[in-house]
Amino acid sequence: MPTAFHGVIPPVVTPRHADGSIDVESLRSVTKHLIDGGVTGLFALGSSGEVPYLTNAERELAVITIAEANAGAVPLVVGANEQTTHRVIEESRRMVDLGADALVVTSMYYAIGNAAETEAHFRAIHEAVTTPIFAYDVPVRTHFKLPTDVLVRLAMDGVIVGVKDSSGDDVAFRQLLLATKDLPGFSVFTGHEVVVDGALLGGAHGVVPGLGNVDPAGYRRLYDLAKAGDWAGAAAEQDRLARLFGIVFAPNGRVSGGAAGLGAFKTALALMGVIESNTMSTPMLSLNEAEAETIRGILVETGILR
Amino acid sequence: MPTAFHGVIPPVVTPRHADGSIDVESLRSVTKHLIDGGVTGLFALGSSGEVPYLTNAERELAVITIAEANAGAVPLVVGANEQTTHRVIEESRRMVDLGADALVVTSMYYAIGNAAETEAHFRAIHEAVTTPIFAYDVPVRTHFKLPTDVLVRLAMDGVIVGVKDSSGDDVAFRQLLLATKDLPGFSVFTGHEVVVDGALLGGAHGVVPGLGNVDPAGYRRLYDLAKAGDWAGAAAEQDRLARLFGIVFAPNGRVSGGAAGLGAFKTALALMGVIESNTMSTPMLSLNEAEAETIRGILVETGILR
Amino acid sequence: MPTAFHGVIPPVVTPRHADGSIDVESLRSVTKHLIDGGVTGLFALGSSGEVPYLTNAERELAVITIAEANAGAVPLVVGANEQTTHRVIEESRRMVDLGADALVVTSMYYAIGNAAETEAHFRAIHEAVTTPIFAYDVPVRTHFKLPTDVLVRLAMDGVIVGVKDSSGDDVAFRQLLLATKDLPGFSVFTGHEVVVDGALLGGAHGVVPGLGNVDPAGYRRLYDLAKAGDWAGAAAEQDRLARLFGIVFAPNGRVSGGAAGLGAFKTALALMGVIESNTMSTPMLSLNEAEAETIRGILVETGILR
Amino acid sequence: MPTAFHGVIPPVVTPRHADGSIDVESLRSVTKHLIDGGVTGLFALGSSGEVPYLTNAERELAVITIAEANAGAVPLVVGANEQTTHRVIEESRRMVDLGADALVVTSMYYAIGNAAETEAHFRAIHEAVTTPIFAYDVPVRTHFKLPTDVLVRLAMDGVIVGVKDSSGDDVAFRQLLLATKDLPGFSVFTGHEVVVDGALLGGAHGVVPGLGNVDPAGYRRLYDLAKAGDWAGAAAEQDRLARLFGIVFAPNGRVSGGAAGLGAFKTALALMGVIESNTMSTPMLSLNEAEAETIRGILVETGILR
Repeated sequence: MPTAFHGVIPPVVTPRHADGSIDVESLRSVTKHLIDGGVTGLFALGSSGEVPYLTNAERELAVITIAEANAGAVPLVVGANEQTTHRVIEESRRMVDLGADALVVTSMYYAIGNAAETEAHFRAIHEAVTTPIFAYDVPVRTHFKLPTDVLVRLAMDGVIVGVKDSSGDDVAFRQLLLATKDLPGFSVFTGHEVVVDGALLGGAHGVVPGLGNVDPAGYRRLYDLAKAGDWAGAAAEQDRLARLFGIVFAPNGRVSGGAAGLGAFKTALALMGVIESNTMSTPMLSLNEAEAETIRGILVETGILR
Repeated sequence: MPTAFHGVIPPVVTPRHADGSIDVESLRSVTKHLIDGGVTGLFALGSSGEVPYLTNAERELAVITIAEANAGAVPLVVGANEQTTHRVIEESRRMVDLGADALVVTSMYYAIGNAAETEAHFRAIHEAVTTPIFAYDVPVRTHFKLPTDVLVRLAMDGVIVGVKDSSGDDVAFRQLLLATKDLPGFSVFTGHEVVVDGALLGGAHGVVPGLGNVDPAGYRRLYDLAKAGDWAGAAAEQDRLARLFGIVFAPNGRVSGGAAGLGAFKTALALMGVIESNTMSTPMLSLNEAEAETIRGILVETGILR
Repeated sequence: MPTAFHGVIPPVVTPRHADGSIDVESLRSVTKHLIDGGVTGLFALGSSGEVPYLTNAERELAVITIAEANAGAVPLVVGANEQTTHRVIEESRRMVDLGADALVVTSMYYAIGNAAETEAHFRAIHEAVTTPIFAYDVPVRTHFKLPTDVLVRLAMDGVIVGVKDSSGDDVAFRQLLLATKDLPGFSVFTGHEVVVDGALLGGAHGVVPGLGNVDPAGYRRLYDLAKAGDWAGAAAEQDRLARLFGIVFAPNGRVSGGAAGLGAFKTALALMGVIESNTMSTPMLSLNEAEAETIRGILVETGILR
Repeated sequence: MPTAFHGVIPPVVTPRHADGSIDVESLRSVTKHLIDGGVTGLFALGSSGEVPYLTNAERELAVITIAEANAGAVPLVVGANEQTTHRVIEESRRMVDLGADALVVTSMYYAIGNAAETEAHFRAIHEAVTTPIFAYDVPVRTHFKLPTDVLVRLAMDGVIVGVKDSSGDDVAFRQLLLATKDLPGFSVFTGHEVVVDGALLGGAHGVVPGLGNVDPAGYRRLYDLAKAGDWAGAAAEQDRLARLFGIVFAPNGRVSGGAAGLGAFKTALALMGVIESNTMSTPMLSLNEAEAETIRGILVETGILR
């Protein structure tokens, strides 16, 4: 059995009109932009898709739109983002009905759990939903690091088919890679845009880069170079993408950390003509003209814009 | 204009049958137990009500049941617990339709906000919903401490009618009390069960005690003693309640922190015959026989059981 | 056996000349100011004394100066502030030789310990040094909260004679008070300047207020009112002191949190003519003229200056 | 001007006799073991050297012993580990007198600083001490992440000659590498034992591996493979070393995190016959027989022992 999921699976941004409503046209456009860029999958309702800010109706609209624009071209992974087990199960069923090929599930949040509850959480969801599940390790949001031994047990028992790691804990990441190395069909993705070369060298199967919205072809190139064993080439491409990642620092503290990163991706896409507006979800501030100019400079410098 | 909210407003636990379904009879029973104990309000869908673990249908059932059992006896405060602004607004409307007299709203969670976004969050909710709003400061869950200056501005502008403080930051709590002292109709509640005497001495208007499920009359007594200026009496009653609070340490690490506290309240209520079962929401473990025995000992020692 | 330590024991600030050297004259002056204000003890080399910033020679000079100015008037408590057990033991011996009547010891820092190591740490120090030891619970600096059960065991076994609590965990504080209530000669002090009334109501034996440098008489008054059972009077005095505490917010983010609080105390003392300069230890910034003016306003408003 | 520091510079462990005194013979032996293994430098008084636990006399003895055993074979880097600026300056001078070729300095700890104070801290130390300074970024101990912009300014101004990064923040690490890429003589080392291949691929100049005490030759091999562009070979060697790193999990929670890692290194060295005893500094527990057996198994499995 081959590894089902691998490569570049960006978390698709969710564009809004200036009035705050979901911009369906722009969402179709960014989906097409990603597929044209060579991504190997699409991740709807991720953090970069502003999932915590979407109402349930908006989540539905976003998934339907992406699924239609994708039309089966690449696998569609969807976030089932809810606080606790039974709420995740309900959200998972909704997402599967809308066309999810796989689900992305975090540990509980707002609730205060522990390792045993977290393991039971994933097992209960898997029992209720047959669709493949990725564990999403994002302690900066959930305030709980998924323990390596829990992930390995869930992997061995087929409860999860992979991990999306945004933990920033590169030591645990390597331990997870080592422990699941010989497990067929299991995939480990890094969520960190600027260390993909090292992650792939260490055995990772792919990347879920928010920045991949802006430069999907760059990430695909990096992935292909690594697969071909051209590590120096991969590192050079990674260095270029790391410079491009500098767009997230444009607001320099004027907006929240969340609004800075996602706002930079949306602003870049608007400057590139892929989406209409860089409007953020309430209550996040959108980036301003000056910040857009800083971003334009970086896009030019890294070859995205002329 | 008088202070509308004051006194003892416990967060009502949500009993479940052994099979995991909501136990409507027991929920009616605990509501009656609280009103008979002299509480001045009821708080449905709080953390002690296991709100993050309830599905939307369960949340609805819990509020309807409590509202019916209360039958207008005391004000009904309801948690509108959701991740971000628009989701809170939708949840708020749902809760108002079910009979909420006031809403309890936290800062965003899972989302990564800042002070300015948090202020905008509360303002947007207030604009959309006319029902009185309490800000709920619970950084152990949201991982964001509501800044005192933000709370004071929201209070001055009538966006919030009060604060429920579970921040554990007693210095900020006193600063908030001082800053809102002369603001008519504004109420500050502590959520910490064992420091109510000091909070009332410092000017707080009441308490939202999870432990109040177990001993509502004790908290009412403490409140009345304080209001009468009998501070030594209030402190003695608080000491007894602080010993009673020892029930939350019965599991001694066997279950998660969340499951220990709520589980202890449910176990005590089951031992007292108020509810049928101490069953917890998935994936939390329920307390076992040995832990129940420890709890029984403390209930006897503090005069709750004979 | 009576409680040996009680009342108001402020952590003495360490004045510096504008050139950065220790200002011995001003240190004598502030010591006299405190004794005249009615303090029941002096705490040298506390956090408010900028102990982490003093070289070993400076620490020695500070303790010698305070001890001479005190001349046995009140007990002299001295911080033995070092990273780990053997280093604390060496520092403790040095401080006892300089005249310490009691020592203040934190858990380890920089080192990454746990509860068992922390208990062993205090036991090893007590075995090596016969001088009474206070455990200083200051997780904001050590990043380790002293567990209540460890403190209670150390208290029962006579390893420590008291606790200075700056943990901000008022729930654990009350549990500690309850657990050590009947232990003769054991003292629990709060380090939080604005909640002293509630702490005393709950059974605390005293306070170690940095702000006590500025208004020792106010804290003594608060303590005496509480001891006399005039709790409303104590709360009113506490409210005034809480307003005075507002001086620490004068820099409003211009300097670090550490520099703001200590800088405000020094600036107030300079404005009051007790010390010569508000110069801070390297690399902390000293407060500027505008901040001093804000502080002067609060001093006038709270009756410290006319 | 060439990069002065590069390659493998392990933090030398500090062996103790069973009675707790420094074991000078074993310290000589481990130093020789490291030089024989091909290390390109030695780091005395690092965290793996238990520097926070050593008294000043012990620190002196450790540095003198390592310096003598090294006899100038490789550069000797020494930790000047103290709380704040002036204390670091005094410690730095002491270490330079004992033969330090370079100093390793952290941000302040116990003290609560900010970015501006941290920058001033390093500048003041550099002004007082001409010896080259490495900034050591270890927020798990100091609870302050050295900001990338501060590090870059310090690098550009020649205040620091390099960074030892144990921050676990691989994103910031890559940004630092990018920003200092063209700065001659500036070196960036990772302190994380299991991601060295990726770090070198991204442009790092070397590694400071605690595990290098156990297998210096393995780390040298990894470094040489990377320098030769054999990235697949480097990754394979890293995978073996990552498996070897599993020794730190042998105590499985029985001892503190600090005692587990350092205790595993010492236990391995004792099993290998390099040092006499695996005794830890007070109050850390030493690893027991069962844990030593687990470690022996891993040493055999990874080719260190037969």
